[in-house]
Amino acid sequence: MNHRPEPRLTFVTEDSMALLLDLYELTMAQSYFREGRNERATFELFVRSLPPRRGFLVSAGLDTVLAYLEGMRFTDEAITYLRSLRLFDEAFLGYLRGFRFAGDVRAIPEGEVFFPQEPLVEVTGTRIEAQIVETFLLNQINLQSMIATKAARVVIAAAGRPVVDFSARRDHGTDAAMKVARSSFLVGCAGTSNVLAGMVYGMPVYGTMAHSYVMSFDDELEGFRAYARHFPQNCTLLIDTYDTRQGARHAAIVARELRDRGQALAGVRLDSGDLIEQSFAVRRILDDAGATTVQIFASGDLNEDRIAAIVGAGAPIDAFGVGTEMGVSIDAPAFGGVYKLVEDAAGYRIKTSTSKVTLPGRKHVWRMQRDGILRDTIALAGEPPIAGARQLLEPVMTGGRRTLAETLAHARDRCRNAIATLPSSLRELQGGRADVRRSATLEALVAELSAAVAPS
Amino acid sequence: MNHRPEPRLTFVTEDSMALLLDLYELTMAQSYFREGRNERATFELFVRSLPPRRGFLVSAGLDTVLAYLEGMRFTDEAITYLRSLRLFDEAFLGYLRGFRFAGDVRAIPEGEVFFPQEPLVEVTGTRIEAQIVETFLLNQINLQSMIATKAARVVIAAAGRPVVDFSARRDHGTDAAMKVARSSFLVGCAGTSNVLAGMVYGMPVYGTMAHSYVMSFDDELEGFRAYARHFPQNCTLLIDTYDTRQGARHAAIVARELRDRGQALAGVRLDSGDLIEQSFAVRRILDDAGATTVQIFASGDLNEDRIAAIVGAGAPIDAFGVGTEMGVSIDAPAFGGVYKLVEDAAGYRIKTSTSKVTLPGRKHVWRMQRDGILRDTIALAGEPPIAGARQLLEPVMTGGRRTLAETLAHARDRCRNAIATLPSSLRELQGGRADVRRSATLEALVAELSAAVAPS
Repeated sequence: MNHRPEPRLTFVTEDSMALLLDLYELTMAQSYFREGRNERATFELFVRSLPPRRGFLVSAGLDTVLAYLEGMRFTDEAITYLRSLRLFDEAFLGYLRGFRFAGDVRAIPEGEVFFPQEPLVEVTGTRIEAQIVETFLLNQINLQSMIATKAARVVIAAAGRPVVDFSARRDHGTDAAMKVARSSFLVGCAGTSNVLAGMVYGMPVYGTMAHSYVMSFDDELEGFRAYARHFPQNCTLLIDTYDTRQGARHAAIVARELRDRGQALAGVRLDSGDLIEQSFAVRRILDDAGATTVQIFASGDLNEDRIAAIVGAGAPIDAFGVGTEMGVSIDAPAFGGVYKLVEDAAGYRIKTSTSKVTLPGRKHVWRMQRDGILRDTIALAGEPPIAGARQLLEPVMTGGRRTLAETLAHARDRCRNAIATLPSSLRELQGGRADVRRSATLEALVAELSAAVAPS
Repeated sequence: MNHRPEPRLTFVTEDSMALLLDLYELTMAQSYFREGRNERATFELFVRSLPPRRGFLVSAGLDTVLAYLEGMRFTDEAITYLRSLRLFDEAFLGYLRGFRFAGDVRAIPEGEVFFPQEPLVEVTGTRIEAQIVETFLLNQINLQSMIATKAARVVIAAAGRPVVDFSARRDHGTDAAMKVARSSFLVGCAGTSNVLAGMVYGMPVYGTMAHSYVMSFDDELEGFRAYARHFPQNCTLLIDTYDTRQGARHAAIVARELRDRGQALAGVRLDSGDLIEQSFAVRRILDDAGATTVQIFASGDLNEDRIAAIVGAGAPIDAFGVGTEMGVSIDAPAFGGVYKLVEDAAGYRIKTSTSKVTLPGRKHVWRMQRDGILRDTIALAGEPPIAGARQLLEPVMTGGRRTLAETLAHARDRCRNAIATLPSSLRELQGGRADVRRSATLEALVAELSAAVAPS
């Protein structure tokens, strides 16, 4: 067994990313290359069905995808490795060495709401270039749209109270930690605890203190006072290391001491136990001590349902830190995005096996929306516009060059608007069913092709 | 809102990795720095409880952790960003600029079986250096040990049949795609479809073809023949794009054509439907056509339970491709590793709130194992050895330098042995309970400290 040449921490780099694909993408590609079957084809990425309890999905990941497509290269190291597999010939390896993605991409932009069967990303290019990007596109769109969808539920449940991403330690690796921070911010979270995400994405970073900090002092009050000395402008005390009510009394003492120096304690954090009951008790302790402006921040196994219960109970919790359950989308940790051939030089393509039918052809998605009603129609791209509807798929890359370069802030605004205008039935945590139709022309085409593609 | 200076694909690099931490690690660190509380302390990473149905856990992630600790640096870019947050003073930023991890690490090596409450990684260093590595250590150990634990179940269920990791498209991002490939190989999977993992980790890569390949030809048989022409030594045909039995008949034709040329069809792949029923039918079609050596490879929403059912039914399936369910550990997608202060200059430390008790002090884990019996005893490090038991925690880093550098193959051997010698009750998919005890001395210390740490 070969071993890597040197100990490195991260192997997924700009240079190596092109190899992050399933082997069959390359074996199929060599076959197309030899067969002269590298004519233009269109693939589309879509989701077959909604995850449990979801009423809608949120588009995220496109920015990563476009950066990948623009930069995709097979380096000498990659070619050398591929040669060692004894599967590929020199003609094909030469093709890969010169490979640049030069296709066209249409997509539903980040932050937009979408639904199953709707093409989220559509890639048109030579068959090889459109095929071999499959693994990476799915890896990133599945992760980021899954998290955006989950985090949107959390933000909706918080009903205006800030939500901060605390998930880095439970996210599935470093890339996930970055993309969870970004995707949750995209859909309305206030920020993250992840400092690198703060630097890279320009998003606010938040933090309080850990239990180990409190445990590092001989008693809790001493620890609180030390932290308040060092961060008087920005002090949130974690009060549940030993006994939460006693912690609240200690926090109230520190609040008074800060007040006496003309400063103010920002908040306290609850991280365990019955958050509703404790928040009322802690609020009372703080208020009785005159610390009425001290905010209560809650964390600890939170999700959209627990937050909705807290909000519904009128609990005096001002902001939420949400970690694990949002960061791994714990109730639906796999997003069902798939990437399928829909059209090529020979015309429309369809897969019929085992009820996993694909919708053939390049498409438009028309959204009619007003007065709390939303109706989407999936149509073939050649069909006439639907009056009063807007089309969701935008051209985002032409000939391998990005034509869309929007800021995260812009995508975040789009998402805020998309969620605000959702029909209330879809916003509910139990997840209603959206009105998504296929055009009569598309329906007829599916019927025609399904009948025609009898196994021969 | 700031935006990143240039479009890059990956922001998690060797240089930036030190910033992949929760902000509070750094605010606490500045407080320790100012308070002169940077004396030596020991933290330990452990898991509080078993995920559902798990009888044991598998250690994975240590190699990444050691690479991180050796290379951890705060670059000028990182310092500039931290300064912009207006939380840190120049003295502390200067400390970070010169920061090198110089602590000691003990750990249960990769591939070893372990249980809740047992210290998996123990970090001793100055309080700051031991604290600020928390987020990264948890992020990596949680992911990799979670996947190793899940994949071990899949490998056990396959009962000797090869299992290949097919999960890249559903893993949570690029880092997860790499670590899932590695962690599943560590516990006995045969390889991965992820080409970059093959290159980096020197592990075998596998691939067949996608439905889109078959759909790219006018009929299935034509597609099969093309693939067989290009990969005669290594041809596995996907036979369920249209109708699986017809696909099997087409494969049998190709098998005969290859045989006539002195070659052999390697296999067929089933990716949908009732795999047990189909495998019997496909086997019969192949055998009737004389294609008795053609293997049947199965994939499609597989997990340890479905594989156990297939094996239990005696279905003629020779190997498995496992994707989503293994790659996201779908039934337990968050691993409960935590990182806690257990000892510092003032002595043993304990956290008592809300039943989340930590075990104080530096520890040894003694494993007594013979004749299918396994008994672990968690003891303080200073206690005498337990006769007939081996100690699991090994010194792996001293003064910031790795003392353990083993190959993946070596760790894989350790895992094979660990799983082979597990008591059968723990190997079962329903997960028995291991015999894990605390030494009397440790029990007495917990009782003493729990009583003493009344809130003051």
